[in-house]
Amino acid sequence: MKQALAAITVVAGLAGFGATAPALAAGETAMTHIVMQVSDGDPAKWQLALNNAQNVQEALGKDKVTIEIVAYGPGLGMLKSESKVAAGVNGALDNNVKVVACGTTMKKMHLTEADLIGGVSVVPGGVVEIMTRQSQGWSYVRP
Amino acid sequence: MKQALAAITVVAGLAGFGATAPALAAGETAMTHIVMQVSDGDPAKWQLALNNAQNVQEALGKDKVTIEIVAYGPGLGMLKSESKVAAGVNGALDNNVKVVACGTTMKKMHLTEADLIGGVSVVPGGVVEIMTRQSQGWSYVRP
Amino acid sequence: MKQALAAITVVAGLAGFGATAPALAAGETAMTHIVMQVSDGDPAKWQLALNNAQNVQEALGKDKVTIEIVAYGPGLGMLKSESKVAAGVNGALDNNVKVVACGTTMKKMHLTEADLIGGVSVVPGGVVEIMTRQSQGWSYVRP
Repeated sequence: MKQALAAITVVAGLAGFGATAPALAAGETAMTHIVMQVSDGDPAKWQLALNNAQNVQEALGKDKVTIEIVAYGPGLGMLKSESKVAAGVNGALDNNVKVVACGTTMKKMHLTEADLIGGVSVVPGGVVEIMTRQSQGWSYVRP
Repeated sequence: MKQALAAITVVAGLAGFGATAPALAAGETAMTHIVMQVSDGDPAKWQLALNNAQNVQEALGKDKVTIEIVAYGPGLGMLKSESKVAAGVNGALDNNVKVVACGTTMKKMHLTEADLIGGVSVVPGGVVEIMTRQSQGWSYVRP
Repeated sequence: MKQALAAITVVAGLAGFGATAPALAAGETAMTHIVMQVSDGDPAKWQLALNNAQNVQEALGKDKVTIEIVAYGPGLGMLKSESKVAAGVNGALDNNVKVVACGTTMKKMHLTEADLIGGVSVVPGGVVEIMTRQSQGWSYVRP
């Protein structure tokens, strides 16, 4: 327990350098928290990311792991209402996977939240979101 | 040396949060340990991962760096007996690169260990393996 | 401030394990420092990496974030004088993005620094450079 507390202190200290990094919540580690990047315009990659999320939840326990999928650039197509994997995205949202869209990409593509699958969150920037999660100690996987 | 011991303690503390993360071995850092992800079904990417492993061993010293290649999803084709890069995979194994296949992908593709290149290990899940390595402080590269 | 100092000490301790890892500079975190990998031979990916760098600078402040783009393997084409994104690379360099080429790839492709866009730096190995940055606590993104 003493080691765990030490870890929280230290990583919180690291995150403290970044102006925009929120404070580390207790228990956020690379084993319990993972951010997945989707930046390819390829529906097979979108499906792979969804499969990865599901498999990680099945392996570690749905309530023991926090998963966030960040889509940006050509990957944003994954989250549009008419996406080929819309059913899979809805399934991920139902399973408490957080799914976020890059606001910078949306602006460039002239999209608003109404163009996205319901339940998808918007962050100002996809890469900054990924940096924030890594600064909090999350694992990073790009399927 | 005092700093090094402090680092072990702290990262071991972090890993301790995750239910499935094994204890950190002394000396496991992002400079001495690297996990490489192969999840594309593209033989050129498979060859690039093998080249990367060889170059890292040549640069840092074969006995000074631990390399693990994790293949999953469409990347699993890299490790099948009839793989186009089978000779390269065997060369990597001969050079003490650990090469692991995702068991979840194998089940989906109806493959058993007998279908893989000899010497390849099987882990329950490829992404969980990558999370585990990152939680242990390893570098992550997706060639 | 006490926490920040603790973080520096600990991460410096980690980096100390690696024979080749330079000492951590104060304030290098996953929120203020990011290494971006370019290893695909696809000009759209090159442009995406350049866009990512620009968006991160705009979001976090150009003088508050350190960005390094590492090109290796088929990604090295991005940095050749005749690159389709040469103008964008020059723009990134003008904005203090560090852009580095993998020396191992250059040797294989029989290229010298004279074949690259002016201002691009050469490192011995691209993957080792990425490992070094991760060991220093930088974020990693592969666009």
